[in-house]
Amino acid sequence: MRLYTFERSYRLFEEATQYVPGGIYGPRTPHFLTFGSYPAFISRGEGCRIWDVDGNEYIDYMCSFGTNLLGLRHPKIEEAARRQQERGDCFTLPSDLWVPLAKRLVGTIEKMGWCVFGKNGSDVTSYAITVARAATGKKTILVARGAYHGSHFWCQTYGQGVPEEWKSHIHFFEYNDPEDLRRVVDEQRGDIAGAILTPHRHDVLRDQELPTESFVRTVNTLARKEGFLVVIDDIRCGFRLDMRGSAHFYGYDADLNCFGKAMANGYPIAAAMGRPELKSAAEQVFFTGTHFFSGVPFAATLATLDEIEASGAIERIRDLGTRLMEGLREAAAGQRVEVRLSGPPAMPFMTFADDQGFDKSRFFCGEAAKRGIFFHPHHNWFVCAALTEEDIARTLEVAEECFKLTRRQFGG
Amino acid sequence: MRLYTFERSYRLFEEATQYVPGGIYGPRTPHFLTFGSYPAFISRGEGCRIWDVDGNEYIDYMCSFGTNLLGLRHPKIEEAARRQQERGDCFTLPSDLWVPLAKRLVGTIEKMGWCVFGKNGSDVTSYAITVARAATGKKTILVARGAYHGSHFWCQTYGQGVPEEWKSHIHFFEYNDPEDLRRVVDEQRGDIAGAILTPHRHDVLRDQELPTESFVRTVNTLARKEGFLVVIDDIRCGFRLDMRGSAHFYGYDADLNCFGKAMANGYPIAAAMGRPELKSAAEQVFFTGTHFFSGVPFAATLATLDEIEASGAIERIRDLGTRLMEGLREAAAGQRVEVRLSGPPAMPFMTFADDQGFDKSRFFCGEAAKRGIFFHPHHNWFVCAALTEEDIARTLEVAEECFKLTRRQFGG
Repeated sequence: MRLYTFERSYRLFEEATQYVPGGIYGPRTPHFLTFGSYPAFISRGEGCRIWDVDGNEYIDYMCSFGTNLLGLRHPKIEEAARRQQERGDCFTLPSDLWVPLAKRLVGTIEKMGWCVFGKNGSDVTSYAITVARAATGKKTILVARGAYHGSHFWCQTYGQGVPEEWKSHIHFFEYNDPEDLRRVVDEQRGDIAGAILTPHRHDVLRDQELPTESFVRTVNTLARKEGFLVVIDDIRCGFRLDMRGSAHFYGYDADLNCFGKAMANGYPIAAAMGRPELKSAAEQVFFTGTHFFSGVPFAATLATLDEIEASGAIERIRDLGTRLMEGLREAAAGQRVEVRLSGPPAMPFMTFADDQGFDKSRFFCGEAAKRGIFFHPHHNWFVCAALTEEDIARTLEVAEECFKLTRRQFGG
Repeated sequence: MRLYTFERSYRLFEEATQYVPGGIYGPRTPHFLTFGSYPAFISRGEGCRIWDVDGNEYIDYMCSFGTNLLGLRHPKIEEAARRQQERGDCFTLPSDLWVPLAKRLVGTIEKMGWCVFGKNGSDVTSYAITVARAATGKKTILVARGAYHGSHFWCQTYGQGVPEEWKSHIHFFEYNDPEDLRRVVDEQRGDIAGAILTPHRHDVLRDQELPTESFVRTVNTLARKEGFLVVIDDIRCGFRLDMRGSAHFYGYDADLNCFGKAMANGYPIAAAMGRPELKSAAEQVFFTGTHFFSGVPFAATLATLDEIEASGAIERIRDLGTRLMEGLREAAAGQRVEVRLSGPPAMPFMTFADDQGFDKSRFFCGEAAKRGIFFHPHHNWFVCAALTEEDIARTLEVAEECFKLTRRQFGG
C-alpha cells in the first residue's frame, strides 16, 4: 500500500505555530506523538473512522481521548442532540432535561444520591475534592503519584506559572501499594478530607495496572476507619467497564464519583456524583459555569446512556478489545517482538520490552499511522462499539507489518 | 393580562432538590432570583424570546448570561454549526477550523498575537494569570474587590471547602480607584505578575461603573513602570462593545485578553489571547481539556464573528439598549420611582433608590417576570440584536405597570 503522508497537516501545523503557543497545546500536540509520522488535524469522522486534512483514513483507537464509545456521529445520539438543538441549547436557566438526567444518573450509578454537571473533567474533580473538604472540615487530599485528574492548578504536574501554595495539602502515595497508602495516612492523620483515585492505574508512559484486591480493600477500610472520603475519578473509564460505574466494577466503596468523556459520546459535559449524606455539604460548595446548563449535551447524555444499555456496548467493546489485545500479542510473538498489553480490553495499552524512552512505541505507532491505524505511543487507547471484526483484522494485519519493521529497526 | 404562574417549574424544582444539591446551583438557582416569581426551567428559545416549562413566553434580557448576542437559534450560526456537526465535533486531534479561527481572532483583537481555546470562562482567566506568572517569574495577581473572574479556587469568594493557601498571592484593590491601586502596587512591589480586570465594573448587587480615564491611565502606566501585565477579563463584555475588544473600547493597554460568552452565540468555547512577545511564556503553561478542541464551537465562533460584523450588531444592541435605558428612566420618573440605570447600553442594569437589600429590585423583576419580561434583580442585563422596537415598547409598557406596583408596595 501507499504510505500516508501528511503535507497539509504539517503545513497547517506550521501556520498554527504563528497563532497558537506550541501550534497545538496539551497532549494533542504532534510533538507528544511522533512528529512527522502522524496527522495534526482531523477533518471528519464517522463510526470508528477519522479522516485527516490530507484525506488519509484511519481506524481510530484513541476515540477522541475516550469520548467516542458508540461511534462518531452515532445516529441516535445525533438525533437526540438535534431535537434539543431545535429547541435551543444555552439558556439563562437550565433546560427541562435537568431533572430527567439527574434522576437517570442517580438511578444508574451505584450508591450515588445526587449529581452536578460541568463541562470539563477538571471541573468535576476539583468540585469533588472540595465537597470532600466541605463535608469533613479537613484539607488534605491524597493523590496517587503520576495519576491525571485534570489541568487545574492543584493537579498540574507539568507546566510553569503555578505557585507551590496552590498545590499545598496534596500528598502522594503509590497506586496499588497498600503499605504506601498506610504510610501517607499515618503521616497526614487528622487532616485527611479524601483520597482521589482513578478506578485502575492508567497514567501515561507506563503499563496500565488493575487495582489489586488488597489495595481496594485497604482504600475502603482506611477511609471508613480514618473518616476520609473516597473520590473515584471515573472520567476516562466511566461507562466503558460497567453501567453502575467503575467503582462498582473494581469494588471501591466510593463516596464521590466523577464522570465525563464517554457519558455523552462526544458532547461536552461532565458530572460529579455523591452519596446522599454528602448533599448538604455539596450545597455549601460554589460551582458554576456559563455553559454548564446547556441542554444539548444533556440530551446527548440521556441518549448515550440509553444506547449503551440497549445495544450491549460495554460487552461489545470488551469483546472487541479482547480480540485486539490477543491479536496484538500473537502478531508480536510471530515477529519475535516482546510486548506487554495492559489494562481492561475496553481501553488497552501496549508497550515494548527494553524501551525505556518509548522509541519503539513511537516508531511502531508512527508506522501504524502511516498505514491507517491510529494508536498512541504514550497514552492508553480506547475501543469503540462501531469497530467491526473486519476492522480488527485489518488492524492486526497492519500491526504485524509494523512489528516486523520495529524488529528490523531495533533488533529482537 | 393574566399573570404568569410557575406550577410546573416549581414542581420540577422541588423534584430537582432530591437529585441535585440546592436543586439548581450557582447563580441560576431560583433562590438567587425571586423565589416564586420566576420560572426555574426553560423549554425553548428563539431570537430574544424564551418559553418556560409552564409555557410562559418572555422577552429575555439575560441572554443566557450574555452568550446570546445575535438571537437564540440564529439561522446563520445554526447552519455553520450544523455543517461542522455533519463532519464531526470532538476528535482526537483539533479540527481543520483550528488555524482559521486562531488567525481570525488574532486579526480581530487589538495587539493580540496568539490565542488558546478552552470551554469555560474560568479556564481562560486561570490560564491568563498563569501566563502572566510564567512570563514575569512573579506570583502576585492583583484583583478588583468584588469582581467575578470565574469559579476556580483562586477567584472564589463564596462557598466552602477551599483552603486559604489556594487563594494566596491574590491581593485586592478598589476598581476605579487609582490611589488604591497605587497602594496595593506599593505593598506588593517586586512580586507582581499581573492585574486582572473586567473592562468596566459589572459586579453583582451594585450599579455598574465605567472606568474613569484616570483609572485606565493609572493601570496602563503602573503596569509598564512596574513590569506587571494587564489581563482584561472580557468574558462578559467581549464583542458587545467593540469588535477589537473591550480593552480597546475603554483604552486599556492589555497584555492578555479573555473571551467567552458572546463569541459563539451560545456554543461552548472560551479563548485567551496575548501579545506576541508572551507566546514563548505561554508555551511553558500546561493547558488542556477533553472538549477544548471540538470543531462545532469553532464553526459557531467563526460564523458569529462574521455575523456581528456584517449585521452591525454592536451598533444595533447599543441603540436598542439606549432606547431601553431611556425608556426605563422615563417610565420610572412618570411613576415617581427613583432608579439608577448603569453600564453601557449593550448590558444595562437598574437599581432602586433606598433599596439596600434589593427588595424593590426583586419585587420589580418578579412582577415583570409574571408579565413576560425577563430581567434579573442582582446581575447586569444583556441586550441581544434580535430585539425589535416593538419588543422594547412592550417591555416599557410592562415596566411602567411594575414601577406603579413597586411604588404602591414600597412607597415613593
